[in-house]
Formats: sequence, structure tokens, C-alpha cells
Amino acid sequence: MEYQELEVLLVEDDPDDLELTLHTLKEARITNPMQVARDGEEALDFIFCRGAHAGSAAPKLRLILLDLKLPKVDGLQVLREIKSDPRTKNIPVVILTSSKEEKDLVAGYDLGANSYIQKPVDFSQFQNTIRETGFYWLLVNQPLLPAAR
Amino acid sequence: MEYQELEVLLVEDDPDDLELTLHTLKEARITNPMQVARDGEEALDFIFCRGAHAGSAAPKLRLILLDLKLPKVDGLQVLREIKSDPRTKNIPVVILTSSKEEKDLVAGYDLGANSYIQKPVDFSQFQNTIRETGFYWLLVNQPLLPAAR
Repeated sequence: MEYQELEVLLVEDDPDDLELTLHTLKEARITNPMQVARDGEEALDFIFCRGAHAGSAAPKLRLILLDLKLPKVDGLQVLREIKSDPRTKNIPVVILTSSKEEKDLVAGYDLGANSYIQKPVDFSQFQNTIRETGFYWLLVNQPLLPAAR
Repeated sequence: MEYQELEVLLVEDDPDDLELTLHTLKEARITNPMQVARDGEEALDFIFCRGAHAGSAAPKLRLILLDLKLPKVDGLQVLREIKSDPRTKNIPVVILTSSKEEKDLVAGYDLGANSYIQKPVDFSQFQNTIRETGFYWLLVNQPLLPAAR
């Protein structure tokens, strides 16, 4: 298993932000497979092989980009479940949110988010942020391979 | 208190790596004040205002770059103390090490390191890695201001 074969999960309900994120990562020549979940429940089902993903093999994740304001199950609850399970707690989770509320920032770090990013409103700044984030977490940071988790 | 006034602590005992890291961050126009600790004890004394730093005001840290193989107190112990203290656990800690041992990678993530980087041996790759790390953690990632920790 090579690092570039590990997957990236984008948890994002806003179709415009989702499309721009995928497009920007592709342009930055990030080659890891991308998975998408459009609400918190779908994210948890995918990560923990529940619901529609029951019976699937556990995904081999390198990075989770997690929005906070999500339908069904909110992002902080998704984060809590990831970081409290020994099978998943070492997967880097980057919160990517439009929230400007300090309580979200505090809760994100308290629950063990690896990093917290406020989405820039400006289009080109948003692209720069996604590009830097992709480079850093997919080319610089060294993850644990799933077998070592 | 502005983000660029928050400090960066480099914990590094190798003088060449230290000089190259400081030089590269300065060239990348990172303007945050830099503090240096050359062993694990000095790092803990600085972070927790003990020993030579007893009586000092708590440092306002934005990022800690932490080597693992350190004199006196090793890097994993420094990490353990930072991440188990409510005053400091939300400060991002990036492990920057020449260790290729999987047990260090596992222990680093288990103890709550935000990120883990293996130092490239090649000079220009080392500089690129430091530059990307500085950009990401000092310009993209949003930290908690010390008052909110």
C-alpha cells in the first residue's frame, strides 16, 4: 500500500464548495482517490462501514476534510466518533468550515481535530487554501498506514 | 493579540538543522517570533515556566516544531506533557524528525501530535518541507488564541 493510494474523504454539503475543492485538488495534481459524503451520517456510515456501507471493507483513509454545519449528524459529532475510536483516531482530520464562532474552534481542538481552517470567502483565496492544505497533508505530512493503526 | 504575534517554538538539538529551519522560515517571510530549545528539558521549562523560566509569563505559542531524539528529556515525553495539560493541549505540535521507525510514528499520533514529518535528507527538499510547513501552520491553520485555551 503506497501513500498515494490512500483515500481522502471530503465531508461537505455545499455543492459549490465541494466542486471547487475537488477541482482545486485535481488541478494541484493530488492523485489520491477522493470520496465524498454530503452529510454527517453518510460520513460515519462510510468510515465505519455501517448503513449503506455495511459489509464493505474499511476504507484506507489518509485525510478527512470535515465541514461542521452538516445535515443529519453535525461535524463535531462526526469528529468525536472518529477521534474516540482506536481504529480511526490517528487519521488526520482537518476541519474546513465557514463558521466564525470561537466555540466551534475550541470544540474542534478539544475533540482532537488535527487542524482547523476557516474557509475564505474570496474565490482565489479559497483555492489557495485548498491547494496548501492538499500539499501539506498529502505530500508533506506522514500518515500511519492503516495496518499500523 | 494578533496571530502573527504568537510565537513558534523550535525544539531541535542539531545546530545545522536548527539554522536551516530558522533561515528557511525567515526567507519564507514568516514573521512570528521564534523561540529555540535545544533539549527536551529546556522545551518543557520554557513551555511551562519552570527552571530557568520560573516566574516568566506563559509563552503565547502558535506552533511547536518538535524533534524526537533530544538530550535530557526525549521528544515523545515532551509531547506527552504538552498534550496532557489543558493549558497547552490545543497548541499545534508538529513532529519533525529523522526517525524512520514506525514505533515513533505510532507513538507520535497516539500521544496527540497534530502532524508528523520525516525530515528529508536532501537539502532543497528539507527547505521545501520547512517552507510548506511554515505556510500551512502559520498562514492557513487557524489556532486558538491563548485566552481561549
